[in-house]
Amino acid sequence: MGGDAAPTVVVEGAVRAVQQASSPIQMLLFGPEAALQAELASHDDAGVQIVDAPEVIGMAEAPVAAVKAKPRSSIHLGLSALRQGQADAFVSAGNTGAVMAASLFILGRLPGVARPSLPAYFPTTEGICLVLDVGSNMDCKPEHLLQFARMGAIFAQHLFEVEQPTVGLLNVGEEPGKGDELVKATYLVLEQAPDLHFVGNVEGRDIMHHAADVVVCDGFVGNALLKFGESMTTAVPIMIRQVMAGLDLSPAQQQAIREVFGGLQKRFNPEEYGGAPLLGLDGTVFIGHGRSSARAIERLILRAAQAAELTLTRSIAEAFHTVV
Amino acid sequence: MGGDAAPTVVVEGAVRAVQQASSPIQMLLFGPEAALQAELASHDDAGVQIVDAPEVIGMAEAPVAAVKAKPRSSIHLGLSALRQGQADAFVSAGNTGAVMAASLFILGRLPGVARPSLPAYFPTTEGICLVLDVGSNMDCKPEHLLQFARMGAIFAQHLFEVEQPTVGLLNVGEEPGKGDELVKATYLVLEQAPDLHFVGNVEGRDIMHHAADVVVCDGFVGNALLKFGESMTTAVPIMIRQVMAGLDLSPAQQQAIREVFGGLQKRFNPEEYGGAPLLGLDGTVFIGHGRSSARAIERLILRAAQAAELTLTRSIAEAFHTVV
Repeated sequence: MGGDAAPTVVVEGAVRAVQQASSPIQMLLFGPEAALQAELASHDDAGVQIVDAPEVIGMAEAPVAAVKAKPRSSIHLGLSALRQGQADAFVSAGNTGAVMAASLFILGRLPGVARPSLPAYFPTTEGICLVLDVGSNMDCKPEHLLQFARMGAIFAQHLFEVEQPTVGLLNVGEEPGKGDELVKATYLVLEQAPDLHFVGNVEGRDIMHHAADVVVCDGFVGNALLKFGESMTTAVPIMIRQVMAGLDLSPAQQQAIREVFGGLQKRFNPEEYGGAPLLGLDGTVFIGHGRSSARAIERLILRAAQAAELTLTRSIAEAFHTVV
Repeated sequence: MGGDAAPTVVVEGAVRAVQQASSPIQMLLFGPEAALQAELASHDDAGVQIVDAPEVIGMAEAPVAAVKAKPRSSIHLGLSALRQGQADAFVSAGNTGAVMAASLFILGRLPGVARPSLPAYFPTTEGICLVLDVGSNMDCKPEHLLQFARMGAIFAQHLFEVEQPTVGLLNVGEEPGKGDELVKATYLVLEQAPDLHFVGNVEGRDIMHHAADVVVCDGFVGNALLKFGESMTTAVPIMIRQVMAGLDLSPAQQQAIREVFGGLQKRFNPEEYGGAPLLGLDGTVFIGHGRSSARAIERLILRAAQAAELTLTRSIAEAFHTVV
């Protein structure tokens, strides 16, 4: 029931994921049974099973209160299935705060993890940069950022198939000693982490030049950057139309601009990346954008399935077991 | 001597500013006399006077140490002229940290101002949003952000000719109560400021939709956003070429893309805005980008002259005198 267009696009995306998966997926759909059955009726339901979850947590509900008040929500029952080993991964395009709160309650953190963290994909001239945290952690300590770096590097390893991903620290200058108290202290901690390929400070302008595979920051800053970057698909198209209005362009020229700018925007569209994991939980949980289309849901599911297959969660557990 | 292409472009920009100014400008150029005279020889020097300042503070020098070691730099002598009433405004495209340090030492802060603040211009679908602080203040307190809001609103009043500019607080969500400890406390302070038209929280994605005329934030976050936004003129053009390479476009179509995207980039080019004031000093000081062209220097000077004419500094002094 998660996301703005649930359950229609969620059911469609789930069916598509089952059909597209390179290794077979068994899909459990959690939600009000009748609503899901009605949606599923218009699809091939092979490999898709409905589990009744009569309660729905809305996108705007206060996370912790909603999680307490609705134990039979799709979020609760889905995460419980994951907890009990009936599922290998849980995905939702619903209320991120509620998924986080319920995950902490039902799955808990991996041993040694202080705070789970949500990364985001930033397009670069060379591919993708993973930035974390992007909103689930305010008022961080250096140890938190170190853990984000560690978890981000392991996810990047799986995601980019890179042996030793580079890790940068978001800062206001390149030199060590720059920044606020948090990043100055974090620099020293990252520099000494034996398991990280730390490349030093990364400025805002360096992210899209792929200065590092993984960039760590406090969740407040990361959230501001992520949402500012979304302007590429919201405010910038308006500006482009404003610029075009002042020029005398032929239909063929206008068409070219739509194609080129459309291709550019695609890189900034969260849908293209299919959601990100809540790293550090004792279970594989992926979060999709609330505005996910069926295609985005499909990608979200396939990415979560891939992470489960690559044993992302176990890799993080082992890293923390070794290091801590 | 400030900026990457000094003194050539600085002298050219200064001469152009004198020629373009709507009300007459008397220009004092501070720097090594012989070097400036050589540059000035190829220009009409009416209204331009050279003042010898033999020492130069480089862009990469540590600000405080350089300010202590070089009392006969152009930054020192220019600010001293401002202090002594021989000038109405001081502009530099040099080492921002050194200008800030020397300004604090030579001019000092206005009574009641805890920390001077550097704003930046962010393009929006409706014009410009002033974001501050963008790097001169790390580890802020709510009172600092309140002062940034107050100074930013007064500058916006002059700049945009708006009676009562709207002020927003950069945050991770729209609702009050969101954010880290700093912004939660700042929200309460801004809400109660009688002299501000506070419109509440502004998310990263709202800035370019012009959710407010002025957006306040900690200097760390503002710096990250500002530099990330610069990607529009650095990394994004590379991405556009990457997208174009995959398409079969006619010369006319390629030309249209260059025109439209060039028009868009212009809005993101710091040169277009001609520098920003260090708000809260006891004197009008404007900082330009280190990569300023002659045209940017011209704009920087004209903007500073306009601020001096509009008595920006006195307006801030009066506001703090009234409110504090």
